[in-house]
Amino acid sequence: MTATTPKVLDIKEAIETRRSIRKYVQEPMNQDDLHEILRLASLAPSAWNAQTWRFAVVQDAAIKQQLQDAAYGQGQITNAPAVIVVYSDMEDTLATVEETAHPGMGEAGRTGQRNTFDGVFGAQPVAQRGQWGLSQANIAFGFLMLAARGLGYDTVPMLGFDPAKVKEILGLPEHVQFAGLLPVGKRAEDGFPHHRHSVERITKFY
Amino acid sequence: MTATTPKVLDIKEAIETRRSIRKYVQEPMNQDDLHEILRLASLAPSAWNAQTWRFAVVQDAAIKQQLQDAAYGQGQITNAPAVIVVYSDMEDTLATVEETAHPGMGEAGRTGQRNTFDGVFGAQPVAQRGQWGLSQANIAFGFLMLAARGLGYDTVPMLGFDPAKVKEILGLPEHVQFAGLLPVGKRAEDGFPHHRHSVERITKFY
Repeated sequence: MTATTPKVLDIKEAIETRRSIRKYVQEPMNQDDLHEILRLASLAPSAWNAQTWRFAVVQDAAIKQQLQDAAYGQGQITNAPAVIVVYSDMEDTLATVEETAHPGMGEAGRTGQRNTFDGVFGAQPVAQRGQWGLSQANIAFGFLMLAARGLGYDTVPMLGFDPAKVKEILGLPEHVQFAGLLPVGKRAEDGFPHHRHSVERITKFY
Repeated sequence: MTATTPKVLDIKEAIETRRSIRKYVQEPMNQDDLHEILRLASLAPSAWNAQTWRFAVVQDAAIKQQLQDAAYGQGQITNAPAVIVVYSDMEDTLATVEETAHPGMGEAGRTGQRNTFDGVFGAQPVAQRGQWGLSQANIAFGFLMLAARGLGYDTVPMLGFDPAKVKEILGLPEHVQFAGLLPVGKRAEDGFPHHRHSVERITKFY
């Protein structure tokens, strides 16, 4: 066989063929693909370019087993070659917010970014500003699932787990908030077709 | 010229070429494309398939002007042929949650869905469960921007507006929470290149 560049799915195909997949082909993730999926997700937009999202990628079998225990034994975690834990770290975002100013804006941009974030979030309780950070992280969570599908991989977003246990397993600070656990790999089952509201049900036109 | 089917961008191209665009070609949106963008966004996943997102699509010039006034005069709103207001309506979600149970699960699925949502959210304050609804709506917000780009359109996500005024203009209930305003159209400027954290900066590997 000759090496081929795998086809990247188009947006329509990626969205339509995405399914929640709980059984995966038993092979390790291609590490270049894994990095590319994370890179594409990191290009998501966020308010003021805050980029509140952070990723913890678990491929170690023993740690996956611990995560599975924290997720009430749901088998898709150890079945997948990798689990991407997607969380927001609003405190890290605030502490280093100058990094997110566009370099084209120069020093004034860095100062402006600091003043904006201090002004809006400085006096807010950690939990409240953490919620804002989470809402932004979920934009990247959507990008991440589509980036994976686009490169030929499958995922299943999970919110059913004990967040305190997951923080302990991964050594994450108490203030972080989870978008979800995302097992990722190649599908070994078909998954269920989508069931969604119609566009007309959820849209008003003006 | 012969009619051609426009190419749908692949995931990598769509993510990499997405920019925040504030100047648009002055022509109305193709209404079939607009519907398709909304349909693709509606295929986003959400916890328990809650689908908390709702869309208000504004193409009327006078209403766009009102939205622009509520957004401190930011010109991209009237410059774009359409503005998609993305919000979550957790109260509507809860009131009609049986609709989101997969039909394949039958009546037991509908009852289970009701019990799950009542159990988790029934005793929560409206604002708190609204925050949860918003975090889910932001997954679809990400899908929406990529669906638009994939079909050859551009967007700019906006959070800088007075939410109370936007609710009043659109006649939305007080409890809804906004993912953002999303002007959409075809780009008439290049936009700025991405400035993002490196994958290594935001990822831990285990």
